[in-house]
Amino acid sequence: MASRIRYGMVGGGQGAFIGAVHRIAARIDDEYELCAGALSSDPDRALASAQELGLASDRSYKNYQDMITAESARRDRIEAVSIVTPNHMHYPIAKACLEGGFHVICDKPLTVNSEQAAELMALAKAHKRILAVTYNYSGYPMVRQARAMVARGDLGNIRVVQGEYAQDWLTERIEESGQKQASWRTDPAQSGAGGCIGDIGTHTYHLACFISGLKAESVCADLSTFVDGRRLDDNANVMLRFDKGARGMIWASQFATGNENNLQIRIFGDKGGLTWRQEDPNELIFAPLGEPPRRITRGSPAAAEDAARVTRIPPGHPEGYLEGFATIYREIAAAIRAARDGNSPDASVLFPTGEDGAKSVAFVEVVVRSSEAGGSWVSL
Amino acid sequence: MASRIRYGMVGGGQGAFIGAVHRIAARIDDEYELCAGALSSDPDRALASAQELGLASDRSYKNYQDMITAESARRDRIEAVSIVTPNHMHYPIAKACLEGGFHVICDKPLTVNSEQAAELMALAKAHKRILAVTYNYSGYPMVRQARAMVARGDLGNIRVVQGEYAQDWLTERIEESGQKQASWRTDPAQSGAGGCIGDIGTHTYHLACFISGLKAESVCADLSTFVDGRRLDDNANVMLRFDKGARGMIWASQFATGNENNLQIRIFGDKGGLTWRQEDPNELIFAPLGEPPRRITRGSPAAAEDAARVTRIPPGHPEGYLEGFATIYREIAAAIRAARDGNSPDASVLFPTGEDGAKSVAFVEVVVRSSEAGGSWVSL
Amino acid sequence: MASRIRYGMVGGGQGAFIGAVHRIAARIDDEYELCAGALSSDPDRALASAQELGLASDRSYKNYQDMITAESARRDRIEAVSIVTPNHMHYPIAKACLEGGFHVICDKPLTVNSEQAAELMALAKAHKRILAVTYNYSGYPMVRQARAMVARGDLGNIRVVQGEYAQDWLTERIEESGQKQASWRTDPAQSGAGGCIGDIGTHTYHLACFISGLKAESVCADLSTFVDGRRLDDNANVMLRFDKGARGMIWASQFATGNENNLQIRIFGDKGGLTWRQEDPNELIFAPLGEPPRRITRGSPAAAEDAARVTRIPPGHPEGYLEGFATIYREIAAAIRAARDGNSPDASVLFPTGEDGAKSVAFVEVVVRSSEAGGSWVSL
Amino acid sequence: MASRIRYGMVGGGQGAFIGAVHRIAARIDDEYELCAGALSSDPDRALASAQELGLASDRSYKNYQDMITAESARRDRIEAVSIVTPNHMHYPIAKACLEGGFHVICDKPLTVNSEQAAELMALAKAHKRILAVTYNYSGYPMVRQARAMVARGDLGNIRVVQGEYAQDWLTERIEESGQKQASWRTDPAQSGAGGCIGDIGTHTYHLACFISGLKAESVCADLSTFVDGRRLDDNANVMLRFDKGARGMIWASQFATGNENNLQIRIFGDKGGLTWRQEDPNELIFAPLGEPPRRITRGSPAAAEDAARVTRIPPGHPEGYLEGFATIYREIAAAIRAARDGNSPDASVLFPTGEDGAKSVAFVEVVVRSSEAGGSWVSL
Repeated sequence: MASRIRYGMVGGGQGAFIGAVHRIAARIDDEYELCAGALSSDPDRALASAQELGLASDRSYKNYQDMITAESARRDRIEAVSIVTPNHMHYPIAKACLEGGFHVICDKPLTVNSEQAAELMALAKAHKRILAVTYNYSGYPMVRQARAMVARGDLGNIRVVQGEYAQDWLTERIEESGQKQASWRTDPAQSGAGGCIGDIGTHTYHLACFISGLKAESVCADLSTFVDGRRLDDNANVMLRFDKGARGMIWASQFATGNENNLQIRIFGDKGGLTWRQEDPNELIFAPLGEPPRRITRGSPAAAEDAARVTRIPPGHPEGYLEGFATIYREIAAAIRAARDGNSPDASVLFPTGEDGAKSVAFVEVVVRSSEAGGSWVSL
Repeated sequence: MASRIRYGMVGGGQGAFIGAVHRIAARIDDEYELCAGALSSDPDRALASAQELGLASDRSYKNYQDMITAESARRDRIEAVSIVTPNHMHYPIAKACLEGGFHVICDKPLTVNSEQAAELMALAKAHKRILAVTYNYSGYPMVRQARAMVARGDLGNIRVVQGEYAQDWLTERIEESGQKQASWRTDPAQSGAGGCIGDIGTHTYHLACFISGLKAESVCADLSTFVDGRRLDDNANVMLRFDKGARGMIWASQFATGNENNLQIRIFGDKGGLTWRQEDPNELIFAPLGEPPRRITRGSPAAAEDAARVTRIPPGHPEGYLEGFATIYREIAAAIRAARDGNSPDASVLFPTGEDGAKSVAFVEVVVRSSEAGGSWVSL
Repeated sequence: MASRIRYGMVGGGQGAFIGAVHRIAARIDDEYELCAGALSSDPDRALASAQELGLASDRSYKNYQDMITAESARRDRIEAVSIVTPNHMHYPIAKACLEGGFHVICDKPLTVNSEQAAELMALAKAHKRILAVTYNYSGYPMVRQARAMVARGDLGNIRVVQGEYAQDWLTERIEESGQKQASWRTDPAQSGAGGCIGDIGTHTYHLACFISGLKAESVCADLSTFVDGRRLDDNANVMLRFDKGARGMIWASQFATGNENNLQIRIFGDKGGLTWRQEDPNELIFAPLGEPPRRITRGSPAAAEDAARVTRIPPGHPEGYLEGFATIYREIAAAIRAARDGNSPDASVLFPTGEDGAKSVAFVEVVVRSSEAGGSWVSL
Repeated sequence: MASRIRYGMVGGGQGAFIGAVHRIAARIDDEYELCAGALSSDPDRALASAQELGLASDRSYKNYQDMITAESARRDRIEAVSIVTPNHMHYPIAKACLEGGFHVICDKPLTVNSEQAAELMALAKAHKRILAVTYNYSGYPMVRQARAMVARGDLGNIRVVQGEYAQDWLTERIEESGQKQASWRTDPAQSGAGGCIGDIGTHTYHLACFISGLKAESVCADLSTFVDGRRLDDNANVMLRFDKGARGMIWASQFATGNENNLQIRIFGDKGGLTWRQEDPNELIFAPLGEPPRRITRGSPAAAEDAARVTRIPPGHPEGYLEGFATIYREIAAAIRAARDGNSPDASVLFPTGEDGAKSVAFVEVVVRSSEAGGSWVSL
């Protein structure tokens, strides 16, 4: 294996959500090593968070400016920076990173307006640095599969693209209660001009374009704010006109009770249709004209090379498989740590022990005995 | 964070499946560090595999005996060993590890017979070492939730437990074609007396007991081998009698076409019933007597503390969310590595770039403009 | 039982679809008796169709004018007329019927423009006759349930209503091939100004209002015709603004491959959300704020009185249950008719015979014997 | 149309369930005419029930013996008799009917033991009369489709047949509360030796044989009674061995909370697998070996001739479509009856009126106007 890529992180300290996700994502394929961090806009929290993550104390920074200055001077300097702050800070941090010669991995949205976005793209080009934005849903195998199928013509000419992204976590005005995720997302100063449309509508839009290969030409939109006192839209109805005559709609809502994270894309051409639902991400429903719909699953023979390339585990093992396995490992770690001091782990630790293993061995034995006896009852 | 646990691995070299899963699982929560390995029964492949994983050359061993001897002598010796070999090797390796004072994380089944299992348990006890078996499905949040609900009486007295595990990858005699996974699993010398019942039936059995808290007392079984020339069962029909009068059935099959990895547990008591399906692992269907069935999802308010403890991401984000994110990171890594030499990454690299980010920023802008104009068409 | 209502039918002859549906619907509850008909605009076909249905020859009419005249003069005259012709004929026929003192049951749409509709309403009022339009989806038990739940406040204040109706039968230009259903539906002269929006969008609109109790105030629409040469829209994107501040969207399409008749309504208020899908009509998903979503099924204790009133069979027996039963009866009828002449029915007749019944009786016997023997194998 | 078949009914009076289902089934295709009845074992209830159904008073009988005697003497005598009594009465009634020269349509099970069944078969043969048993699930189009696919070899050689039928209506001892359906079904004197296995297990068994074309050779069964005081089994676990080496299991339960009427059959051969679920009866999942599973729907081009022959409505219109339509008709009938006396119908009558029709006409008009204006807001 080539050596790991050293990276730093801005944002993602205690209480944050997406920063931890970026770190796990970076570990899964063992391609990165987190070496530095300016993990919070609050300097004390930044340092405490870094300690918790086991960062070296001399690479735990109070703010991103310090990180850029200090890392630039190191021999083993980081190559890349993950930016996982509220939206309004993406621009200044990314700018400083690119100017300092660091690759940038920025959480979405890239910036809060188009001028900033254009400037960052120009900087990335000038400094020959990678500028990536984590529209993460484009990383799913069956999204890649869908894109490949459209590209190779399985759907014919695309006519209609319907996208939706329904959540319910903002049904009430929880931004008032100090819920950190809600408060910055509903604050125009931190989020930009779009609330729901910016936070989740953009995922839908990106995916619609990513899969269909189409370019949107114009929109007609009806944004609404239903929760009293909220400062940004929490429901977005949008009609779209794409190039090549295609049409579409996007619905995004943050109070659609019963929808946790219901992102869905449906695409129809003159030869067939495709449906992908994020809450059931391992399958893609393909309906070729005049034939029964098929369920194409991740890892199956029907999945294209583009999907296979980003598939880690076999078909039928939903991607949570890796997490379930990780939980067993985590609990074993707790037991090993306890054992270091001669203790037992907490009662909540439930990994299967040797005894569980022995019981299953015995189970196979009696099943085989029962069956060999022609199928009669055998005690365990 | 406490320091990582150093561990070694036996098996899991090139061409293996479950070894890579164990390594990813160990990385996800950043609790382990892979320091040593005897990764194949073929010494050359063992060394090549270790190099690919970036193991230090002096901790890359030709076989497990060497690993145990050498690691025992080191100051920074590994604490734990993951055993991911074919079944028949679990016993001698685990025995040697436990006798050497190492914790053991063994893939299932623990051993190929009950005598070996009993001996390993005794050794673990005598040496005060952890002996864990990776019945990984017990690590899923909603399995924990199910167990907690049974334990707190939500189902009342358990009457019936129905388990099934249907796969289709052995519908034909692929063990003859050199498919490595198939060939050892259908070889009694490597797998033990149970084929399908051992490979997947035991997962079902473990889960049935893990969730229900019941103990099986007797079985009546009908094992069959349908594929000509196969040496172990590929279909298992089993009826069970549990303690406290409960009854159950397990069906396991490896040629149930259309079933990739369809593990399912249903439990019914006198106050309600539960269904969990591994292919839709983020939900648990709970049907209380006389009321509409509810869909309890991972991460939702209805999920118990036992589920929350092993939940990493919010409701509605199926656990594949972390993998999708990891794919974006992997592709950015490829781009960064290419950039080191002034190159562009391969065309298959599809992570969202600054341009994608800019397009979405522009999208929000026009949507907001359209909506502010009362809902009229605005060009992009 | 009160005596049956005598009715006549205009349209619905050989080759038609919806007329047969109206006749079956009228028979299911045994409340009507078909006594007269002007079943086709082609007089010969009208008479042949009437003969096939077993109408008395003196009440089989060449056209609706004749039917109205002749029936008006009879003592046992029909009371009601079902109009199941192409859209453009609804108005003149309904007008004549109402003026003749007959109740009118008109397939949707009522007319092809608002002026005609207003005139018919006025006539119905003046003549004190029933004027009904078969927006049939409002007859489903779980649609009634949804309406009742909104009305009693289970969802709180309604914020968003999302409707869609996706079909795929017009993906190609089948109207050119002489397909009768397609040709009149895509002909402005017979259908009116709306194609897809009129044929299926109106069902969605009616249901959205029926369930939500809201009144639409304005629309912003984007109708498209994708199939070359088609004369009316085949895709409709519509944004709606309802009274009380609610918003909504309707998507209707006739080329959404893989969607046979996918009508779906989702309604969200500040206390909960509801989803009903016509292709799974026996269930309603209700998501109360902060609690797990529930599946309310037709006939279950959770279903309201409004649903129970229109429920014929128990929960879990999808409404096709009655049809399956009818098929058995139909095949037995074929056998009885054959037996009249001493013949056997056609080989396609598959109703369960005495022999099938005997086999099942024997099955129970051996199962009981096996179980009584403690669970051992018993031959059949 | 050929003339209708005149039939009589034994059982099915007030308070009964299946009798009404038989009558609706007989009406749907308009092939039968109910002319006589002995509708209850209680003579008064028999007469009251007949009156409610509108039977002629001279053909409303106190018991089946009277009906057979009187009808035999009539010129317009009935040809067939539907028997919808508790199980133990099937034999004497069917015997008398066959001996009297009437065709018999008997609800399942045919009889309570094999001797009776054999005798009825012999009588039917001797008298050349039809003896049918309403295993109604064999009348579903997609069950016919499944049978046709097995017969034409789409699945190859059948290896495994898994059947299940889970209900929850007998989770508690409701037979004690006077619930009529529960009390006779749990009474050995009325039901025979099998409780759950007889009531619902036999449906599963019939369907397993009907679809697979296999013959069961032996069973190994474990019947249980979980509800205290119940006199017959309420849970049945059965393993089966079929001819040609196939194996199978049947699980039937009447206390599987959350399962209303969950009958399911899965069949696997060496070339593919099929799944049919009664609660989603319009689809059949077909998984050919090595290809993505397909969803074959009733009425679609992929459905075989055997399914098409028993299909009444188009794909995507679940069979409840007919019932929804019937509800509209029923409510219109209520309105017409009320209008006869110059009254309005009850407030619960909700059929769409001319006003509803007019609103939808107006909706299409404004949608078209909005779209023609390029997509701008238009008021209703």
